[in-house]
Amino acid sequence: MEFLVRTVNNLPPDTPPERREELRRAERARARELREAGILKRLWRVPGTTGTVGLYEAADATELHDALASLPMFPWMTITVEPLATHPQEREA
Amino acid sequence: MEFLVRTVNNLPPDTPPERREELRRAERARARELREAGILKRLWRVPGTTGTVGLYEAADATELHDALASLPMFPWMTITVEPLATHPQEREA
Amino acid sequence: MEFLVRTVNNLPPDTPPERREELRRAERARARELREAGILKRLWRVPGTTGTVGLYEAADATELHDALASLPMFPWMTITVEPLATHPQEREA
Amino acid sequence: MEFLVRTVNNLPPDTPPERREELRRAERARARELREAGILKRLWRVPGTTGTVGLYEAADATELHDALASLPMFPWMTITVEPLATHPQEREA
Amino acid sequence: MEFLVRTVNNLPPDTPPERREELRRAERARARELREAGILKRLWRVPGTTGTVGLYEAADATELHDALASLPMFPWMTITVEPLATHPQEREA
Amino acid sequence: MEFLVRTVNNLPPDTPPERREELRRAERARARELREAGILKRLWRVPGTTGTVGLYEAADATELHDALASLPMFPWMTITVEPLATHPQEREA
Amino acid sequence: MEFLVRTVNNLPPDTPPERREELRRAERARARELREAGILKRLWRVPGTTGTVGLYEAADATELHDALASLPMFPWMTITVEPLATHPQEREA
Amino acid sequence: MEFLVRTVNNLPPDTPPERREELRRAERARARELREAGILKRLWRVPGTTGTVGLYEAADATELHDALASLPMFPWMTITVEPLATHPQEREA
Amino acid sequence: MEFLVRTVNNLPPDTPPERREELRRAERARARELREAGILKRLWRVPGTTGTVGLYEAADATELHDALASLPMFPWMTITVEPLATHPQEREA
Amino acid sequence: MEFLVRTVNNLPPDTPPERREELRRAERARARELREAGILKRLWRVPGTTGTVGLYEAADATELHDALASLPMFPWMTITVEPLATHPQEREA
Repeated sequence: MEFLVRTVNNLPPDTPPERREELRRAERARARELREAGILKRLWRVPGTTGTVGLYEAADATELHDALASLPMFPWMTITVEPLATHPQEREA
Repeated sequence: MEFLVRTVNNLPPDTPPERREELRRAERARARELREAGILKRLWRVPGTTGTVGLYEAADATELHDALASLPMFPWMTITVEPLATHPQEREA
Repeated sequence: MEFLVRTVNNLPPDTPPERREELRRAERARARELREAGILKRLWRVPGTTGTVGLYEAADATELHDALASLPMFPWMTITVEPLATHPQEREA
Repeated sequence: MEFLVRTVNNLPPDTPPERREELRRAERARARELREAGILKRLWRVPGTTGTVGLYEAADATELHDALASLPMFPWMTITVEPLATHPQEREA
Repeated sequence: MEFLVRTVNNLPPDTPPERREELRRAERARARELREAGILKRLWRVPGTTGTVGLYEAADATELHDALASLPMFPWMTITVEPLATHPQEREA
Repeated sequence: MEFLVRTVNNLPPDTPPERREELRRAERARARELREAGILKRLWRVPGTTGTVGLYEAADATELHDALASLPMFPWMTITVEPLATHPQEREA
Repeated sequence: MEFLVRTVNNLPPDTPPERREELRRAERARARELREAGILKRLWRVPGTTGTVGLYEAADATELHDALASLPMFPWMTITVEPLATHPQEREA
Repeated sequence: MEFLVRTVNNLPPDTPPERREELRRAERARARELREAGILKRLWRVPGTTGTVGLYEAADATELHDALASLPMFPWMTITVEPLATHPQEREA
Repeated sequence: MEFLVRTVNNLPPDTPPERREELRRAERARARELREAGILKRLWRVPGTTGTVGLYEAADATELHDALASLPMFPWMTITVEPLATHPQEREA
Repeated sequence: MEFLVRTVNNLPPDTPPERREELRRAERARARELREAGILKRLWRVPGTTGTVGLYEAADATELHDALASLPMFPWMTITVEPLATHPQEREA
């Protein structure tokens, strides 16, 4: 099942640069694992922000939640999850 | 997978009573089928309205959509679907 | 009477892990008591968040409030309570 | 249990005056019955509108809903119901 | 003139218990005075929160404001005030 | 007591010009009476709309409501009323 | 450049079935052309609605607008367009 | 003084094409006059809609309002006007 | 040109009383100057808050901005500015 | 492609004046570079705030994002980006 996942990054502006870079690297590594697992399919940057919109696929919302909660940045993120149904035009495709 | 489904009923107030009753009976019949299929699990009335909140279960959002779209009242309803993940406290239960 | 209860968890991200775990265990214990008292009936995780949606039953809003206020996490939660009326389809059931 | 009930009146502006007056009288009569039944306790006009805020008391949301749905103006009203808990300061009073 | 007054309590969760209790007692005392002055007429707890909905009566919004601003918790409260007009059904009563 | 009153004009775009002009003249006449009665004190046009913001004065919300409800355009207006308290800086003035 | 496009379908519920089917077929045909042109890349159904979320690609917002405005259903749709920036994680991919 | 003006076009979808074209031409003509008068400076299409965002200049909000109200499409438009102050960076420019 | 200006005061509740009083006096002094300059015309207290609604007059939004930015409380205020056009009823007056 | 970019400045009120001035100068310098690069075209002050509305031009949202993220104030800004399509009236111009 596919989900549209929107994240807002609440990391305080005065977070020390090293800590920020450390989190960024860990986040990138974990994201790569989620891609390899077929869970994270596409990720876009919301322009002008440190937030993202992403296309995810998981068996259900519980599996999706566990994947999102495993992201190092999870404690500093506000995440909204929207379920997507297959559109008739893409059922035959 | 479980979903929380909220419906707002937009049937115009001046809909002839017979038409309203006919739709109501068809809706009730279809709802009973969805219960028997294990898709509709609980249904509540939002007090003071003709809207509902319901607990549904389906393989994914596509199956849920098809069930909701099969309701006779579907053309007159504004529906919002919220995905639910299993809470850790209920994973062991 | 049944209520739909939505919680948002505002525990700061930099809360020490031990303190977080201590609260989590206390919360879980209190929740078990509320289940046994028939007040907490179902609890779901809002995917991507540390928030919940729950189905509660209480004599009235005052009894529900006292139950919610007794949760160890209460001071760090934003809670919205929605009253649920019995749907005609479930009155006969 | 007490509820705060807010109504917005959607009766179209070009409703014939006689029909409007007929509904108004029927509404007033039904409201009087709800007062006598101890369900409708206070009713205020939201200034500048044809809407109201009301204090209602009922066993639960289901009884409240049935009372509200019995109002002649029900099909033309958008109603929101807010549950009220007894405040500690009024528990002793 | 009557007003519907809604308060949200922003006292930080980690406020020391003694300070919280001290404020609570002062608030309760001041509220009793406002009741005796006929300004505070009814007060409810918004279930699941530390907020309130209250029915107040004052000569005008200025007198109401001074009463609300005199509450010890005033600096930590977000307050919205809604003016209430007498409903025709209660004019004759 | 002073109020800030905001109106949105819902008169349908295809209202016949004569009907529109008739209502406009009646509205202007009634507004003049409210000015003479000291109820309507200032009226501004919300630029780009047919809506208004106005400063009104009345004994209370009930008197204000009766004045607003007496406006010929009342059935086609969405009105919000905000109570105003006297600012300390203007108490001495 | 990629865009996230959300549509809400406002076709009145009482639209004659033949007209609805005619529009649906025309819409499907035009959508196929937009896919072949590489403009429409993915399309999902918002569960419980007749609305969609879609991933589009166009040189800029003007080209995107022309594509969306060419859809037979355009006059009955409320569309919101969100620009997407390439995420650093997908720049190297 | 400069203003940012946002319009939403509410012309019903089933407006006869000739009437729509007639309005469009009249709107375009009037817009050209406003450009020549230096009032309308830039106009953009909100992608996916029949709405616009525009940069206008006028002596004040009253002159701006009269210009907007003179547009043939005015009765079918929802318009919001935002005042713009000169930015320090552009004061010296 | 006239403007309706709404302020929300974000001064932290635990601001030392002397500092609060110092700011209040400076704010009052500056407000008096703006009155004498004909910029600040009326100021009301939003009941139940430390916020205000005010009627201001300035050549344009830039002059208004400079006046508002000169207020000692400016760094702690959330301000929204609404442009007002002269209403036809007040053009002849 | 043109974008409308809205910024809200979240720099804490108690930021030391020297730090604030240092950031302001760096921001001004970077903005000048973006003007010379043809990316920043117009910038306005939202009256009563430290926020801005700006007209930007970039190849796409990714280039725009990089420009915005390069602003020294970026970590303290909430930015919303709106894509603009060319209006038919300006296509011939």
